[in-house]
Amino acid sequence: MRKQQMHLMAFLLAGPTCHHHGMWRHPETENAFLDPAAWEHVARVLERGCFDALFFADISSIYDAHGGGYATHLGRGGQMGLLDPLPLIAIMSRVTQHIGLGATISTSFHHAYQLARVLATLDMISNGRVAWNVVTSAATSEARNFGLTGLPDKNTRYDIAEEVLQACCALWDGWEPDALVLDKKAGIFADVDKVRYAEFEGRHVRSRGPLTVPRCPQGRPVIMQAGSSARGRDVAARWGEIVFTLQHSKHDMQVFYRDLKDRVVKAGRRPEECAILPSLDPIIGETESIARERQAYMNSLVDTELGLAVMSGHLGADFSRFPLDQPITELDLDPAVAGSMDVIVQGTKAANLTLAEAARHFATSELTPQIVGTPESVADQLQDMFESEACDGFIITPTVFPGSFEQFTRSVVPELQRRGIFRTAYPGTTLRDTLRMTP
Amino acid sequence: MRKQQMHLMAFLLAGPTCHHHGMWRHPETENAFLDPAAWEHVARVLERGCFDALFFADISSIYDAHGGGYATHLGRGGQMGLLDPLPLIAIMSRVTQHIGLGATISTSFHHAYQLARVLATLDMISNGRVAWNVVTSAATSEARNFGLTGLPDKNTRYDIAEEVLQACCALWDGWEPDALVLDKKAGIFADVDKVRYAEFEGRHVRSRGPLTVPRCPQGRPVIMQAGSSARGRDVAARWGEIVFTLQHSKHDMQVFYRDLKDRVVKAGRRPEECAILPSLDPIIGETESIARERQAYMNSLVDTELGLAVMSGHLGADFSRFPLDQPITELDLDPAVAGSMDVIVQGTKAANLTLAEAARHFATSELTPQIVGTPESVADQLQDMFESEACDGFIITPTVFPGSFEQFTRSVVPELQRRGIFRTAYPGTTLRDTLRMTP
Repeated sequence: MRKQQMHLMAFLLAGPTCHHHGMWRHPETENAFLDPAAWEHVARVLERGCFDALFFADISSIYDAHGGGYATHLGRGGQMGLLDPLPLIAIMSRVTQHIGLGATISTSFHHAYQLARVLATLDMISNGRVAWNVVTSAATSEARNFGLTGLPDKNTRYDIAEEVLQACCALWDGWEPDALVLDKKAGIFADVDKVRYAEFEGRHVRSRGPLTVPRCPQGRPVIMQAGSSARGRDVAARWGEIVFTLQHSKHDMQVFYRDLKDRVVKAGRRPEECAILPSLDPIIGETESIARERQAYMNSLVDTELGLAVMSGHLGADFSRFPLDQPITELDLDPAVAGSMDVIVQGTKAANLTLAEAARHFATSELTPQIVGTPESVADQLQDMFESEACDGFIITPTVFPGSFEQFTRSVVPELQRRGIFRTAYPGTTLRDTLRMTP
Repeated sequence: MRKQQMHLMAFLLAGPTCHHHGMWRHPETENAFLDPAAWEHVARVLERGCFDALFFADISSIYDAHGGGYATHLGRGGQMGLLDPLPLIAIMSRVTQHIGLGATISTSFHHAYQLARVLATLDMISNGRVAWNVVTSAATSEARNFGLTGLPDKNTRYDIAEEVLQACCALWDGWEPDALVLDKKAGIFADVDKVRYAEFEGRHVRSRGPLTVPRCPQGRPVIMQAGSSARGRDVAARWGEIVFTLQHSKHDMQVFYRDLKDRVVKAGRRPEECAILPSLDPIIGETESIARERQAYMNSLVDTELGLAVMSGHLGADFSRFPLDQPITELDLDPAVAGSMDVIVQGTKAANLTLAEAARHFATSELTPQIVGTPESVADQLQDMFESEACDGFIITPTVFPGSFEQFTRSVVPELQRRGIFRTAYPGTTLRDTLRMTP
């Protein structure tokens, strides 16, 4: 059975931009990313809008593949996570009661015991609202921060990621819910028969346990994943309860959706246990023409060189060595980079762009579709994608911060609610309740 | 010049006990260690009492050296940190404005980049109030949680710890205070000439940087340390801005104090840059006899077997294999364990105890001196130690939670303030201001 209501999640990044490079330069963007009160505010806004969850993207370095340094990326404000997202999740949990709180953490640099412990702690203090966006790290700049010269190949990185997940689950499952006894008179603190060693022995990951943290409200945090390769999709199909994806058209979304739901079923899970959410950048105006002008204004704020630098960071190549007017089909690229470049070509829907044109295109939302219009027409577009089985809902990315979320929750959310395709109240207590319970 | 006012810091541990094993069994102890609101409450209480800081002790496992398992330690409520302290520090920072917030993190299991990033984030969101209690891990149970069969010897552990500290400092120092420009019109996000790679290359630790986090309010978090061996004291002398120590008498405190201040001077620092704070358990009553009865009641709550289990955990030995009535001087111990046992003998001030007697003694505050009396007599004792150059202040450990802190801040703090030996208001903004500024 198809769910009748969509999921909405908010994309956050503790830095100058989320996807659209013009974000920090917009006149209304506060750039208060170092101020905890600003994060508390956006959590409250999104909870008033009944969003399922918010989550922080993250990167463990400042990209420096472009021109052999971070000058362009840092100097002009590319994608970066200035702050560690976990303390932000913690403080946001104390000013909200229902919204889910996710953070991206790489399995490449942290031991499973530490991940299991901090995530269980956050699930405990948020009363069951934590999601973990499981990523592997690929950038050399990240590896070097952690004292490595490079990272294993993609398959090995995924092997490690799956072992980290298995180890975390063994640790989380080690405490039964009623293990704490707290009998002061008898001096019985815990029933030790309800706590077990994890004894996890993988090829890459080992942990004995038990975890120090008693069973957390969700048992395990909600697992979020963003695989796009075949291997990545299989990992998502086995583990992902929320899948964050980036598709450039309704047709692309439908193809991805059908493929991943098939893989979910083959992995022995029910399709509705995995919510597939493509990322979108809504740009909203009181009229269609205001919205179009907003879009044009927004897109005028991007910087060609920064677009190239962020492309260099994402693709692990140095595009500074090519002339800006060279057609992207004629670039002399490594085969691995060329494959990633195809994704950008797909996003541009035109192979005859110059490198400069592709960079500017990339910089306007980094291939996330811009959904432009009045609240009604934005709701129409979301409803159409949702009802066409292109997705189970959306990850909404801001172009103005926090204004995009204020505007979306005040104008589009009520329209979706009027149409009965988005909730008007939270159905339960935990994030997993919110994801699984339908009206 | 001697400072005229003492420092006070609070010892916390997110579990059943801090030092005194009877804590969780006391009728007034809430055992709300999983409830974030309880931690917010105690932070507010301590800030009303003008405490310099609070800090969380921590252990990365549940001790299981005793009897080959964790049955006694977990079952009866020994020292353990159920939750990761960092999210707790984050939420406590949002309900306070002045008090310092410290957390114990081991250098044995986490990479310097991650430590530097999360600590700088916490310093940022707390507006400059973070302290890091730097410890190395020794327990096999901790090693096994992190996939290791054991840990390096003590000297190597300290070598690694000092490299982790050096790497963190190189990362923290990599951003000048005014590196963020945020010029929207010109599109200049940061002045990249004010950000540097760390390029730290140690024998054990490497990190390239730059850190993602701009310079935090304190520049570097306050470093706290608790070395007691010669090597540990030298590390404390080089790095420690707060030194947490455990001494059994005023004389022991004076000897330690003089030795460490000498080492601080030899390390090229001024003596007042390192605050030496022994840990104490105050037990307070309206009259001396109430206080004495409280002490006796409190000490009646300890469990001999649990005392032995915690001794086993701390000393890395298994005391379950000895008869309880054996004199501790006659135990057949490994030389390394025998050295640690001497500390316990010193604490008991009597070598002719049986193992059971030593265990109960150990369980009553784990060798932290109990300071018993009326608020005035407790203040007398603290003033005497402080003015005898036995310390620069105290780490106050609760025996009832959170009651001990409520009682101490309401009764002893005002008495110390009346005598002019403790502040009545915070002198500045950051924790380092609080530690360094004198009236």
